[in-house]
Amino acid sequence: MQIRLSQLNYHIGNFEENVRKIIGEVKSAKADGVDLVVFSELSVCGYPPRDFLEFEDFILRCEKAVAEIATACVGITAIVGAPLRNNVSSGKGLFNAAFVLADGGIRQVVKKSLLPNYDIFDEYRYFEPNRDFDLAVVNGVRIALTICEDLWNIEDPLYITSPMDELMNDKPQLMVNIAASPFDFSHREDRIRILEKNCKKYGLPILYTNHVGAQTELIFDGGSMALNAKGELLHELDYFKEDASTFQFDGDLKLVGEEKTIDARPKIERIHDAIVLGISDYFGKLGFKKAVLGLSGGIDSAVVLYLAQKALGAENVRTLLMPSEFSSGHSVDDSVTLSENLGTEYEIVSIENLFNNFRQDLKPLFGDLPFNLAEENLQARIRGVLLMAVSNKFGNILLNTSNKSECAVGYSTIYGDMNGGLSVIADLYKTEVYELAQWINRNGEVIPENIIAKAPSAELRPDQKDSDSLPDYDVLDRILIEYIENRKGPAEIVAMGFDEMLVNRILRLVNLNEYKRYQTPPILRVSKKAFGMGRRVPIVGKYLC
Amino acid sequence: MQIRLSQLNYHIGNFEENVRKIIGEVKSAKADGVDLVVFSELSVCGYPPRDFLEFEDFILRCEKAVAEIATACVGITAIVGAPLRNNVSSGKGLFNAAFVLADGGIRQVVKKSLLPNYDIFDEYRYFEPNRDFDLAVVNGVRIALTICEDLWNIEDPLYITSPMDELMNDKPQLMVNIAASPFDFSHREDRIRILEKNCKKYGLPILYTNHVGAQTELIFDGGSMALNAKGELLHELDYFKEDASTFQFDGDLKLVGEEKTIDARPKIERIHDAIVLGISDYFGKLGFKKAVLGLSGGIDSAVVLYLAQKALGAENVRTLLMPSEFSSGHSVDDSVTLSENLGTEYEIVSIENLFNNFRQDLKPLFGDLPFNLAEENLQARIRGVLLMAVSNKFGNILLNTSNKSECAVGYSTIYGDMNGGLSVIADLYKTEVYELAQWINRNGEVIPENIIAKAPSAELRPDQKDSDSLPDYDVLDRILIEYIENRKGPAEIVAMGFDEMLVNRILRLVNLNEYKRYQTPPILRVSKKAFGMGRRVPIVGKYLC
Repeated sequence: MQIRLSQLNYHIGNFEENVRKIIGEVKSAKADGVDLVVFSELSVCGYPPRDFLEFEDFILRCEKAVAEIATACVGITAIVGAPLRNNVSSGKGLFNAAFVLADGGIRQVVKKSLLPNYDIFDEYRYFEPNRDFDLAVVNGVRIALTICEDLWNIEDPLYITSPMDELMNDKPQLMVNIAASPFDFSHREDRIRILEKNCKKYGLPILYTNHVGAQTELIFDGGSMALNAKGELLHELDYFKEDASTFQFDGDLKLVGEEKTIDARPKIERIHDAIVLGISDYFGKLGFKKAVLGLSGGIDSAVVLYLAQKALGAENVRTLLMPSEFSSGHSVDDSVTLSENLGTEYEIVSIENLFNNFRQDLKPLFGDLPFNLAEENLQARIRGVLLMAVSNKFGNILLNTSNKSECAVGYSTIYGDMNGGLSVIADLYKTEVYELAQWINRNGEVIPENIIAKAPSAELRPDQKDSDSLPDYDVLDRILIEYIENRKGPAEIVAMGFDEMLVNRILRLVNLNEYKRYQTPPILRVSKKAFGMGRRVPIVGKYLC
Repeated sequence: MQIRLSQLNYHIGNFEENVRKIIGEVKSAKADGVDLVVFSELSVCGYPPRDFLEFEDFILRCEKAVAEIATACVGITAIVGAPLRNNVSSGKGLFNAAFVLADGGIRQVVKKSLLPNYDIFDEYRYFEPNRDFDLAVVNGVRIALTICEDLWNIEDPLYITSPMDELMNDKPQLMVNIAASPFDFSHREDRIRILEKNCKKYGLPILYTNHVGAQTELIFDGGSMALNAKGELLHELDYFKEDASTFQFDGDLKLVGEEKTIDARPKIERIHDAIVLGISDYFGKLGFKKAVLGLSGGIDSAVVLYLAQKALGAENVRTLLMPSEFSSGHSVDDSVTLSENLGTEYEIVSIENLFNNFRQDLKPLFGDLPFNLAEENLQARIRGVLLMAVSNKFGNILLNTSNKSECAVGYSTIYGDMNGGLSVIADLYKTEVYELAQWINRNGEVIPENIIAKAPSAELRPDQKDSDSLPDYDVLDRILIEYIENRKGPAEIVAMGFDEMLVNRILRLVNLNEYKRYQTPPILRVSKKAFGMGRRVPIVGKYLC
């Protein structure tokens, strides 16, 4: 039997487009003599559909889409993902299901048992877990068909049952898993390890299809793959783009008609590719082409400009350089050099006059109170207003240039430099932003070395440096990783050798600034714990602050 | 046996304060000869602790708090709520539990079975459901002790088991339920109905303790209560404040030493009281006293000013009046009258000069492009910057004055009038804001009639009216309620008699503007479906838009 893994970029709720793509693939697979073509989890509606699943209208459209795809499945079998109604009167109203389509109809439905409900996942919000276990049979082959998380109970089990244990009772010959497994910079290794463990434990080969494409903050990286019964990786589909590969199954799996590929990109290149896809899909799926951002002369905005230019093309990215009386001379020069290196348009709008106008109009309220945070933030907000004016006037989406370190400790101005439709690098700590900049310059200077070398500064008061308020970023980032990624408490972090007063101060800043992060733009997720939907913390909590 | 329900206002993560309050209540109950005192769900850490539960350090603090409370429980029994570790190696690491404390230690632990994971609830993110059922026995009385949702499977069952069905096997004499059940304007009736159904089904009386107090967007309204075995309401504790009542149990329940109270507030008064508590707890728990807001002369900011003055005191609320060339003369006059009625300080800062300064500095970019949305939003953003400058300079929290209708269709300026630390009335549709204004004026004019009577306008261009862009609010709000609250799709709403083009346009606007709502301040929740954590919708979704 020939089985094709079809790795597509779906658009949530865009049934017309999703169905068109799936049917196109079914037809070309059939033309190629393929017996079974496998799409990914919730492929007909896109993943994650979130609360759209609460709409009867949305479910009807899913059902209509499945029926339409089924009509194309004659002389070929397809597996697609879609919600399924639960007809039992108790329990949640839906299952997350895999539909086996053949002979123009729905031949069989397999339901997801393990519903991830941690980090960015909310599946138990919508779905009832499956409790019945049956193999799918296609062309006489007995397939243990599971959905994503169903295979992930093999390390530190979060669930009390494991679907494969149940399915083994019926002696399957092959595992097939349809997934919607989002990128983080080490998730490829996690996936390969988990699939390998399943192959070894159950003595079966596996075919695994993943989503590809970004859905707001979540970046699905593709990398669908096949492993043999020994758990050896036979082939990976491409990462960060649509792809398909065909396998021959006759007890064992064999790649058909192409060269075996194993992805070897280093971590930083993966992050780069993920973010570029994240930007281009955010714009493409919203129907926008053009971006605007502020260039400060610092490393964050330089890296974001590079990524935006990669994703959207130089002709679609414009920048504003908005110097103030506190800007160093090189801020503008470096930004001009960067723009010329990248071929992107820039305009210079000084904020000096506007800053003075605001101060004058606020004089009756502020009197002789000294220059402080209010005036610092005022400058960042004037810049935010100018950028949004350009965004509104020309229909450009403003890109936010915050990094994860400053998001964490609140070293940023809400309604100022925190503005934007999409936050591009806010899941990269400052030290990772440097790493990415170095990688961008690996074949020659794209980002001027001066931008990389200079001491980070917000330039909102005379001679300001980030290091006036914060510890060195390599220390700060290591503390933040322990707290945010690893959920260590103050005592545990201090025991690692960090200064107690510093740890307490940093953790306090992180928790106090939750109110700012609540209003942050969606952040492209590249780590295991990004700010946003995957990290849910009370604002009025009084914990460590 | 004498049992006291103790309804306290907890602060998430503030263990010192929560423990101090609980021990104070234990001691005074003991002094009064009470045998058992019952606190609410997750009372030691506050509800909802959200991802703080993922920190070992946080769990250790919970355990320490329970142990400390237990030492005070000598000669009296107390029931408190706290997380409990799951010592089984599969399944999630915690249970949501009720600790029965007596003789200076933990006598028994009962675990929550039904974990709400819809709307604002995320309990399955953290907790493993209980599967063992035992009664709690206190002074020889066999108590079916359950936690909040455990009793809610009695209508349209979301779960396949019902804990009370299991507990009935052991012949309990009394039901006790500890809860953290947030306010919405019809939730009191829901609670009474659910408890009544349980009493009737199981033939048992019930004691029910709820949280009181606001935790960011969630307002816990208290209203702990007792019902007899026939399901008759015996007594309600007060709403929106801390309270305690004692009951004698000897087969049946009897209120001890006070007069029976049944709350009779109309819906609009409940909403008022809830929002006032929401504001005062947001400020109090964050350690702030003072608010600032912009007064436009419209009804939304007028109502917010009234509510803020009620919650914080007139001396703690200041306003800015920020007229432009498009402001009608009465906007300032009406705002001045309102401020005088309420005794709140106001300052007038015209935005005309700043608006002209921005336009002049943007001239090189905008050229002769016509005045449009960019210039409209610019005015709103200048106001936002002025308000944030005052907020930063004087340490006041900016209150957001958006209503739910404009949040829904995006009739608002991001980084302009959408700014704020807390959104006060963004869970009230415009028609409900009018209703509240009328209620505020029930004993005489507080909000000037002219503010209520005038046609709503953003005043961002000459002679602008909301009705230029939107249908009348009574039509708009009815369509929005069907879509947002009732999750009806376009066909269903059209079938109710609304114009098809209008319905499609409104639903499209709601979905297109998800990107704005993503960055909205936290919204005090008073309905069953507020924007925010309880409504999770993709930004790049292409559904109905």
